[in-house]
Amino acid sequence: MGRRYDTISFLSDLGLTDEHVGVVKAIVRDLAPHAVVVDLTHAIPPYDVRAGSLALARAIGYVPSGVVMAVVAAGERRAVAIEVAGGEGVVIGPDNGLLASAVSMAGGAGRAVVLDNADFQLASPGVPVPSRDVFAAVAAHLCNGVDLAELGTPVDADAILPGVVPLPREADGGGVHAEVLWIDHAGNCQLNIGLDDVAPWGSAEGVRLQVSAGDITRVAQRVPGAGGLGPGSVGLVVDGYGLLTLALDRRSAADELALAAADQVTLRPLADGDNGPAVSVPVAMRPSA
Amino acid sequence: MGRRYDTISFLSDLGLTDEHVGVVKAIVRDLAPHAVVVDLTHAIPPYDVRAGSLALARAIGYVPSGVVMAVVAAGERRAVAIEVAGGEGVVIGPDNGLLASAVSMAGGAGRAVVLDNADFQLASPGVPVPSRDVFAAVAAHLCNGVDLAELGTPVDADAILPGVVPLPREADGGGVHAEVLWIDHAGNCQLNIGLDDVAPWGSAEGVRLQVSAGDITRVAQRVPGAGGLGPGSVGLVVDGYGLLTLALDRRSAADELALAAADQVTLRPLADGDNGPAVSVPVAMRPSA
Amino acid sequence: MGRRYDTISFLSDLGLTDEHVGVVKAIVRDLAPHAVVVDLTHAIPPYDVRAGSLALARAIGYVPSGVVMAVVAAGERRAVAIEVAGGEGVVIGPDNGLLASAVSMAGGAGRAVVLDNADFQLASPGVPVPSRDVFAAVAAHLCNGVDLAELGTPVDADAILPGVVPLPREADGGGVHAEVLWIDHAGNCQLNIGLDDVAPWGSAEGVRLQVSAGDITRVAQRVPGAGGLGPGSVGLVVDGYGLLTLALDRRSAADELALAAADQVTLRPLADGDNGPAVSVPVAMRPSA
Repeated sequence: MGRRYDTISFLSDLGLTDEHVGVVKAIVRDLAPHAVVVDLTHAIPPYDVRAGSLALARAIGYVPSGVVMAVVAAGERRAVAIEVAGGEGVVIGPDNGLLASAVSMAGGAGRAVVLDNADFQLASPGVPVPSRDVFAAVAAHLCNGVDLAELGTPVDADAILPGVVPLPREADGGGVHAEVLWIDHAGNCQLNIGLDDVAPWGSAEGVRLQVSAGDITRVAQRVPGAGGLGPGSVGLVVDGYGLLTLALDRRSAADELALAAADQVTLRPLADGDNGPAVSVPVAMRPSA
Repeated sequence: MGRRYDTISFLSDLGLTDEHVGVVKAIVRDLAPHAVVVDLTHAIPPYDVRAGSLALARAIGYVPSGVVMAVVAAGERRAVAIEVAGGEGVVIGPDNGLLASAVSMAGGAGRAVVLDNADFQLASPGVPVPSRDVFAAVAAHLCNGVDLAELGTPVDADAILPGVVPLPREADGGGVHAEVLWIDHAGNCQLNIGLDDVAPWGSAEGVRLQVSAGDITRVAQRVPGAGGLGPGSVGLVVDGYGLLTLALDRRSAADELALAAADQVTLRPLADGDNGPAVSVPVAMRPSA
Repeated sequence: MGRRYDTISFLSDLGLTDEHVGVVKAIVRDLAPHAVVVDLTHAIPPYDVRAGSLALARAIGYVPSGVVMAVVAAGERRAVAIEVAGGEGVVIGPDNGLLASAVSMAGGAGRAVVLDNADFQLASPGVPVPSRDVFAAVAAHLCNGVDLAELGTPVDADAILPGVVPLPREADGGGVHAEVLWIDHAGNCQLNIGLDDVAPWGSAEGVRLQVSAGDITRVAQRVPGAGGLGPGSVGLVVDGYGLLTLALDRRSAADELALAAADQVTLRPLADGDNGPAVSVPVAMRPSA
C-alpha cells in the first residue's frame, strides 16, 4: 500500500453543461468516500492544452497535498501519473504537455507511470471516456492508498511531453516582445514578463511605456492597481502572480486592445520628452502618430 | 427510523446564474451536516424533462448509494420519492416522467410515496419553491434516517408517470430511423441505437453507411473514435454508453449535420459499389443528389 | 481561541470561467481541512454590489451557522468581518454595502473588525487578490477557531457602509411605484413590494392591476402561480420570498415587459368597469390605449 490522500484538485475542459464532471465526482464518492474533490475550474476551452497548463500552473501553489487531476484534450494521448514533492502529491492527466509546468512548480517529477493497468480503471460499454473510466477511478484508488507502481507501467519522467513556456524576446531598437499568457474573466491581459524585464526603461510606479499590439499602439502607465486609472487609460499592473498585466479600470483591456490569449504585445520605452498620447484618451482607439 | 444515507446526487434545471442550487445545498448542510451533495449537472434546459431524464439515466450507473435528487420542471406535478435497489437508494423528484428511466436502470421501484407531509418540508413565505422547500428538506431528512413512509402518502409505483423512451423504427427500403438522444458539449450526437441495430448492413470498423438528417445526406464511417477522421468526415462511434454516436474530429457533428436533440436521423446501407460522397468532403455541406 | 466553525457559505462575482473560485476552495481545504464550502453563487455580475447584496439577503435565512464569505467588487474598499447572531456566524466581505442587508436579517451586527492583520492573510507575489489572499485565508482561520479580535482592528459596526434598500413610493392618482429587485433565471421579476402594498386596490387572487414599465402597459392578474396563465398573460405572484413578482407561464416576464434589474414598475388599480386589454393578449406588446 502507498500513502493515502484525502483531496483531489480537479481541473478540466469538460464544462458544466452536461454531467461529465458530476459523474467523475460520483465515481470518486463511490470508490473513495473520504476524499473531497476541489473543483479548480472546468471552463478551460476544449482541447486548449496551453490554457489548461497555465491555469494549472497558476493554481498549483495553492493546492493542498493530495491528488491533482487535470483533464484537457484527454483521450488523444496516453494517461500518466507523476509523483511530486516526495510523495506529498500525485499529478494525473494526459501526456500532452498539460502537466509539465505544474509538476515543475511542485518541485519536479518523482516516480511516474503510464496508467495502463485496467484493474484500477472502469470498463466502458463503448469507447473509453478518460475522465470517467481512467482518471476518476485512478484518483479514487490513489486516495485509498493504492501505490503508484500498481497503477501502470513505470516511465521515465523525461519521456513525458514537456510543456511549452513562451519566453519574451528583445525588440529591435529597444523594448521587449511579450506574449499574452492569460485573459482573466475581467479582461486583464497577463503577460509573460515581470518587472525585471522592463527595468531598463523604468519600472517604478508612474513610469509610462508604449504598448503595441497588432495595429494598436497605446501608452500604458505603471500603476499599483487599475482602480485609480481614468476612463480609457491603460495600466500596467504587477498582478497577483507577480507578472505584468495590462488592465483598465472596470473595463476589459482585452477588448480595448483587441487582444486574445497567445497574442504578441511589444513594450517599448517612450522617446525622450514624448509623453505619447494623453493618458486619458477618449475611448475610441487610434494608432499613435 | 429508516436507513441513513450520506450522499445526495443532485441534477436540476436550476442553472448556476442565481442562488437556487446554493440554497438547496445550504439547507442540506444545515439539516444533515454529514451528507455530501454531488452535483451531477444543473444545466438541463429549463422544463426539458426529456433531457433531464436522459442525463439522469446516463449518470445513474455511476452514482453512489444514497439519495438521488432530480429537479426539472418541478412545481408542475406532485413530488414523489421512490425506493430503489432494496433500499440502497431513494430517488426523489417531480412525478412528470423525469425519474422513470433512472429508476428502471437502478432495478425498478420499491416503495414509493407522494411527498405531502409538511412536517418534513420547509414553510415558504409565499409560493412554495420545490427545490428549496420540498426536495432539499426531504433529501436531508432521508439522510438523517427518516423512513420513506413518514414523508408522505404511499403510492403504487405503477401510478407514477412513466418516461418515454424513443424506439428506433425500420425504414422503408432498408435502414433504420433513429433519434438524437443527446448532443454533448463537444457536439457529438448520441443516437438511440446500438451496433446491433445496424448489424444487417455491417457494423465492423470501416463499414460505411448513409446518414440522412433533414435535407442533409452524408456518408458516415464506423470508427473506434473520431480522432482519426479527416476534416469534414463523419464518424459513427460506439460512445461511452454503448450507443452509436455521430462524431467529427474536434468539431461539432451537431453543427455539421444541423441536428438538435430529438431530431430524426436515418441510417441506410450504401448501394453496391456506391461509395457515396467522398469521405473527406469539403467543409461546405451539400444535399445529396 | 474563539469558536470553531465548519461551514463557509460563499457568494461572489468571480464567475466560474477561470480558477479564482477553485483557488479559494483549495486554500480553505489546505488551511482548514474540516471546513466545507457551500457555493451560494458565483454569477453575481462583476462589481454589482446591489445584485450581490440582494442575493445574499435572499439566501441568508437558509445558510447554516458558520462563516459567510461574500466577495463582490472586493479590492475597492477595506475588508471587514462582522459577528452575527451572538457568534453563531461571522460575515466577511468588502465594506461596500454588500453585507448590510444580510447582517441585518441575521439579527444585526455584533463585534466587527477591519481585516488588517497580515499574519492571517497570504502574501501575494504582486497586487493582493482579495478573494485569495484575504478572504480565503481569513475564512479558514475563523473555522480553525481564531478569534475575530485577532484578525484585525476593531471597528464600530455603525462605521460600516450601510446597504441601500429601495422603498416603494406612492404614485400620483393612486397606485405604487415599485422597483425590480431581481430577475431570476426564468425571467421572473421580483418587485420590492408585498401584498400589503397593493391591498388598497385588492390583493385577492383574480384581482387585476395595471402594470406600467417604460412605454409598456399591461394588465396583470393576481394568481397563485404562473402555471395556469394563458400565453402572453402577465401574472402577479407572491414569490418564494413573500414578494410580488411579475411572471409568465414558462416565458420570461423580463423579456415580455422589457425589464432589467432596478427598473421602475408602476402598479395602478384598473378604472371601474375597465378590464384593460384582454388577459390573453397576443404575444406582440402594445401600449394601452
